[in-house]
Amino acid sequence: MIDHRTLRVALLGAGSVGSQVARLLLESGADLAERSGASLELAGILVRDVDAPRDVELPRELLTTDAESLIVGADIVIELLGGIEPARTHILAALTSGADVVTGNKALLATHGVEIFDTADQVGASVSYEAAVAGAIPIIRPLRDSLAGDRIVRIFGIVNGSTNYILDRMDREGLSAEDAQRLATELGYLEADPTLDLEGYDAAQKAAILASLAFHTRVSIDDVHREGIEGITADMIDGARRAGFVIKLLAVCERLEGAAADGEDEAISVRVYPALVDREHPLASVHGGNNAVFVEAEAAGPLMFYGAGAGGVQTASAVLGDVVSAARRHIAGGVGVGESARQSLPTAPIGRISTRYQITLEVSDEQGVLATIAGILNDGGVSAATVEQTVDDEGTARIVIGTHRAREQALSDTVARLAQSDVVERVASVLRVEGE
Amino acid sequence: MIDHRTLRVALLGAGSVGSQVARLLLESGADLAERSGASLELAGILVRDVDAPRDVELPRELLTTDAESLIVGADIVIELLGGIEPARTHILAALTSGADVVTGNKALLATHGVEIFDTADQVGASVSYEAAVAGAIPIIRPLRDSLAGDRIVRIFGIVNGSTNYILDRMDREGLSAEDAQRLATELGYLEADPTLDLEGYDAAQKAAILASLAFHTRVSIDDVHREGIEGITADMIDGARRAGFVIKLLAVCERLEGAAADGEDEAISVRVYPALVDREHPLASVHGGNNAVFVEAEAAGPLMFYGAGAGGVQTASAVLGDVVSAARRHIAGGVGVGESARQSLPTAPIGRISTRYQITLEVSDEQGVLATIAGILNDGGVSAATVEQTVDDEGTARIVIGTHRAREQALSDTVARLAQSDVVERVASVLRVEGE
Repeated sequence: MIDHRTLRVALLGAGSVGSQVARLLLESGADLAERSGASLELAGILVRDVDAPRDVELPRELLTTDAESLIVGADIVIELLGGIEPARTHILAALTSGADVVTGNKALLATHGVEIFDTADQVGASVSYEAAVAGAIPIIRPLRDSLAGDRIVRIFGIVNGSTNYILDRMDREGLSAEDAQRLATELGYLEADPTLDLEGYDAAQKAAILASLAFHTRVSIDDVHREGIEGITADMIDGARRAGFVIKLLAVCERLEGAAADGEDEAISVRVYPALVDREHPLASVHGGNNAVFVEAEAAGPLMFYGAGAGGVQTASAVLGDVVSAARRHIAGGVGVGESARQSLPTAPIGRISTRYQITLEVSDEQGVLATIAGILNDGGVSAATVEQTVDDEGTARIVIGTHRAREQALSDTVARLAQSDVVERVASVLRVEGE
Repeated sequence: MIDHRTLRVALLGAGSVGSQVARLLLESGADLAERSGASLELAGILVRDVDAPRDVELPRELLTTDAESLIVGADIVIELLGGIEPARTHILAALTSGADVVTGNKALLATHGVEIFDTADQVGASVSYEAAVAGAIPIIRPLRDSLAGDRIVRIFGIVNGSTNYILDRMDREGLSAEDAQRLATELGYLEADPTLDLEGYDAAQKAAILASLAFHTRVSIDDVHREGIEGITADMIDGARRAGFVIKLLAVCERLEGAAADGEDEAISVRVYPALVDREHPLASVHGGNNAVFVEAEAAGPLMFYGAGAGGVQTASAVLGDVVSAARRHIAGGVGVGESARQSLPTAPIGRISTRYQITLEVSDEQGVLATIAGILNDGGVSAATVEQTVDDEGTARIVIGTHRAREQALSDTVARLAQSDVVERVASVLRVEGE
């Protein structure tokens, strides 16, 4: 049932993902035509410099620096430039000229998603972005289509491969944070400026995109509570291991209902932080640069999606899946249902969430310490599930408290009071426990 | 962007999945309308007996025994009757009258898939079947759409919850096969006639559907090599555990190329059998009635999809996802790209596959046994990677041989010769090793 139409595809960007997309478009033309229902003609590739050296050889005659002419004649525009501008301008131009857009640009969607999806709705074009979250793993489409008849309650997972690589090496080989980070840089997991990854910005962008889609509301990066892995030390990882946990940088998107919504009918919480995960939990065995996302839906129950979180050729697979779908849609001619953001759900401040916590305190080694600490916890309304007291070889006395589920606000107030107590010398770490 | 159209939905069957689909359609009308772009009106529910008692209360006026009238007026027909007839006749009637079809009927698709997809192609209607494989887990759509620009090399996984439940209880609690099976029956994991599950028919139906979709070819249940778990004993599970493995009933679909295709350009192998899986492999930690499917694609690399493999409400989630997509499609009006079966790939006989094997032999406890066995392996062209000899408390001497990768044909010939050897008293088990 091949329609003998030809669709013109414009590719913006020829970096690690873009060059693989170009290669696959050129090499797998017949296959893609069969699956799309139309021939896909790569009309041109926007680059900054047509003479720059490239890892993947691309036909010289396809390279161009003229974005405008390339976009105006295209049926499908693939944006893989990254960053806000000129990506935003190009995407808006593409939509306005009637093209369907495929993008992997998480930074742009997490900040200007509303503008882009509204424009697409107005002109009746589509924006697909499977490649923006979790690399090759199909997660956007399952959330949007497969679970369209269900109600998503919670999403949590590992969506940043670089930090997972670092934490995994620290956990499995006892490396220091510095050594693990150096290794990650050498192997290309970290960019020259690693702050986007290490401080959780990259994960927060993805969390904003996932929450928007899952809860049919508009979440921007500013709504995401964000903590990175800068403060995670080998000691903390070691302590976590001894307690049966592993530390993972998690993105968590959840609905808050009833009491948790504090007077609102419903609210959501979107957050990124390093958390303790039980070693028996499937997320604990996500090693290296891989990603894994848990989705909990009312009817479907818990689902997990796992795979490579990054990589040029892996992410190119996600881009091409979107291109084939866009091509089918372009031919069918229907408008489709746009990004639904009918719910304007308020985002709850971090103080309103509740989880279990593990608090590690360095204390003075004297009688009555435990009683004093128990009193402070009790006054703060934080209930301890487990308490373990140890003295290490250097004579440092430590108390590790595992709490029952508590409100973040109550917890942080209590930790502040613990820090001020005479018997507490140092709050060594406070970590949330997720995945239970 | 709600289209104020109303689409009439006919539901065939009100069993454990059907009744949940009805409930969700009736309860979540507004939500589904927003996501579909049209109101979905449940026009009627086909049942055998309108007066039969039901777990989920359904509006009496919707129940009907008149299939023909129900189908002819419907825009979307959901078939959840199971079995071949009358499901096949109803689906063909629905397609011919212009309805889109959503079905969870794996038995039908694995036997009459060609007829159904051809009919859908001819009339320009769609057939969706996410619920037919792996319950709530989105696997059909990712294969069909997300990986549409990639080339799938291999699929393997756990697609039958009942047998996984049985094997898991045997492994984790040391239950006998009989006890685990009794428990599975009591808890509703097994039907009154458990052969469909135990002998691997259910898994083979799903393997045929997955292979057809992944390799764009037509695979029927007759093309699937099938072995069930009837022969798996507590001893075998115990032996597997001691060697660092767990036994899982796996469905494996793979492309054979080069030498493995034996003269063909390309062939496929589709098979279901109990196999050894390394305890470190993610599939080893799929417990209870859950399902998990690994997909290896050329560009995307390995992906895993995990979740509930069965259950009325879980599977209903998959059905509703398909209904929402069918509604969008119905409104958009495009024909879409049908099931692509452009490749007529030959199915290779089981003798042509190659894996690693673990052979457990009971042998006479005398000198020279090992040399004799090594000689037979060598003559058969099967190379041993590990050999372990043990004598148990009852004085039974055993040799466990882990082979390097070998052709199934060479292996089975060799095992036949081992069985005839004077030094071998019994071939206790021969198991394949998968997931490496």
